[in-house]
Amino acid sequence: MNASFSDVSRRALLSSLAALPALSTLVPLPATAQTAAAGDPLPSWNDTDSKKAIVAFVERVTKQGSPDFVPEAERVATFDNDGTLWAEQPMYFQLLFALDRVKALAPQHPEWKTKEPFASLLKGDVRGALAGGEKAIVPIVVATHSGMNSEEFNQIVRDWIATAKHPVTKRLYTEMVYQPMLELVAYLRATGFKTFIVSGGGIDFMRPWTEKIYGIPPENVVGSSGKVKFEFRDSEPVLMRLPEIDFIDDGPGKPVGINEHIGRRPIAAFGNSDGDLQMLQWTKGAGGVRFALIVHHTDAEREWAYDRKSSVGRLDKALDAAQANGWTVVDMKNDWKTIFPFGSK
Amino acid sequence: MNASFSDVSRRALLSSLAALPALSTLVPLPATAQTAAAGDPLPSWNDTDSKKAIVAFVERVTKQGSPDFVPEAERVATFDNDGTLWAEQPMYFQLLFALDRVKALAPQHPEWKTKEPFASLLKGDVRGALAGGEKAIVPIVVATHSGMNSEEFNQIVRDWIATAKHPVTKRLYTEMVYQPMLELVAYLRATGFKTFIVSGGGIDFMRPWTEKIYGIPPENVVGSSGKVKFEFRDSEPVLMRLPEIDFIDDGPGKPVGINEHIGRRPIAAFGNSDGDLQMLQWTKGAGGVRFALIVHHTDAEREWAYDRKSSVGRLDKALDAAQANGWTVVDMKNDWKTIFPFGSK
Repeated sequence: MNASFSDVSRRALLSSLAALPALSTLVPLPATAQTAAAGDPLPSWNDTDSKKAIVAFVERVTKQGSPDFVPEAERVATFDNDGTLWAEQPMYFQLLFALDRVKALAPQHPEWKTKEPFASLLKGDVRGALAGGEKAIVPIVVATHSGMNSEEFNQIVRDWIATAKHPVTKRLYTEMVYQPMLELVAYLRATGFKTFIVSGGGIDFMRPWTEKIYGIPPENVVGSSGKVKFEFRDSEPVLMRLPEIDFIDDGPGKPVGINEHIGRRPIAAFGNSDGDLQMLQWTKGAGGVRFALIVHHTDAEREWAYDRKSSVGRLDKALDAAQANGWTVVDMKNDWKTIFPFGSK
Repeated sequence: MNASFSDVSRRALLSSLAALPALSTLVPLPATAQTAAAGDPLPSWNDTDSKKAIVAFVERVTKQGSPDFVPEAERVATFDNDGTLWAEQPMYFQLLFALDRVKALAPQHPEWKTKEPFASLLKGDVRGALAGGEKAIVPIVVATHSGMNSEEFNQIVRDWIATAKHPVTKRLYTEMVYQPMLELVAYLRATGFKTFIVSGGGIDFMRPWTEKIYGIPPENVVGSSGKVKFEFRDSEPVLMRLPEIDFIDDGPGKPVGINEHIGRRPIAAFGNSDGDLQMLQWTKGAGGVRFALIVHHTDAEREWAYDRKSSVGRLDKALDAAQANGWTVVDMKNDWKTIFPFGSK
């Protein structure tokens, strides 16, 4: 199932993602971002160069009187999500959500039985359904992410993420998060940083669970979005989700999304793929001490190993840039003691 | 000068606003949002129904164990800016900024001497320059809000707002804020609310000074925006401001902007014009105890008096809605002891 699923272009998925608002009643999930030990804020990190670089940066910018001191208001840290905070294999979880939604909606769409890409999908031929690339994925995402109002979509995501299981690990998707990154997010927040997600994924697909899982509230989530329209239905004001892309928060879109949502330039940014390159460049391009980190997926046994040739989370140009510019590259196999809160794949 | 200036359509201005990022070194301004007295959080409010309604609402939603209790994470309050937090007469301050910029840029644009609307403007005939309505205003705003990078625009706004004086009061624009509203913003924050600006004005025109003046940081500012593009200039990554509108955060755009930027539905919203109607409807339309307030400009002596017929800050449909639905309508003349931190117009 894996490789075929990966054969979908990132752009195609992004070109059709829409989104949704906040909440607070997800299923109970393992306590995470708050678990850093009192003594060592990064207990799941081995004592290698990556950890040392993180701690050295934080100490430089937070030490009052230091020439590199940055006031709390300006301590903005931005994190990619897929492949940086949670896993992205065998394919972006949001696409798995969309495929599940097609199955759930099929009874209301008898025409899908003979209409591609839905027909193949409903017969269980996922490879065939997605073979059309963008042409296949856009209608799937539109059919599953628009047509309802914002609060209905919110509830759909909440319901799905509360029970859907990862195809390989059979764990909840919200358990497929990286324990070392949860500690890092918590460490930065504990040292006065404002932490934001800046993801190519749908802003409204993430917001229902990011506060619970990462401690990052909806207003600190930046992502791709579809257009919405304010109107009255049955005398109630609603925001209807339209079948139209509004913004793609990927690649050169990430600095644009950061500017629009945050209005400050980050002083630290964390990513794992070429889609994060411009966010890292934008962050490092400012004057002063700035931090850029790439999570390099090097552990085929405990997680997945992929980089330059991968269609999901391709890390090629950004890896070159990291090496040329001395950015921190996390070697998951050697730098992380633990991968997931529950252990390994 | 007043009436003629007002003869510009709100839509025209909005249709051409662009925007910019953060900072921290504005000129010193009167301490404001932190000045509420310890005993009475709203000392500049008379003890009338408006004040009572505000306090009653805050007590209901913040009292632990109350059936109307709202957790802090969900205490979102949104404020319009022009006419709600600061004055908007004789015309939107951002348009005055644009006019000042035309004068400053004129030496670099010899062609403006014979090209309308610039030619009239440079001869001092503001009424003539703006007579064309949207057709005149759009090129003025485009010429003054795009073509530079985000950080250059940020600096331009900072420099302007540090010294430019209001044409009537001769006060800095950042002094033209309503003392009772500063107290209200501070009161809400002190009771666990997250305070946001949701304005038709340019997001990047506001962000350089909202933290200093209102205690509202750039990431909590929602506004109209122009498109920006990430690129490299002289090997430096920049966000270039393009002469193209991205989003109009006004009227039905306000709930859309709230959804995109905040991702939660407000439980309290504050406005003063028809451009705020949908934000107030969206806020009140949710279940539970919700608060909607309109600042009604009724004090011609201490500020300005205008409502249903005004071309700046027209309050007509929203006033009807407030009366029909029992929203709180602030009568500035009777409800406010003080208007501006420095006193009155």
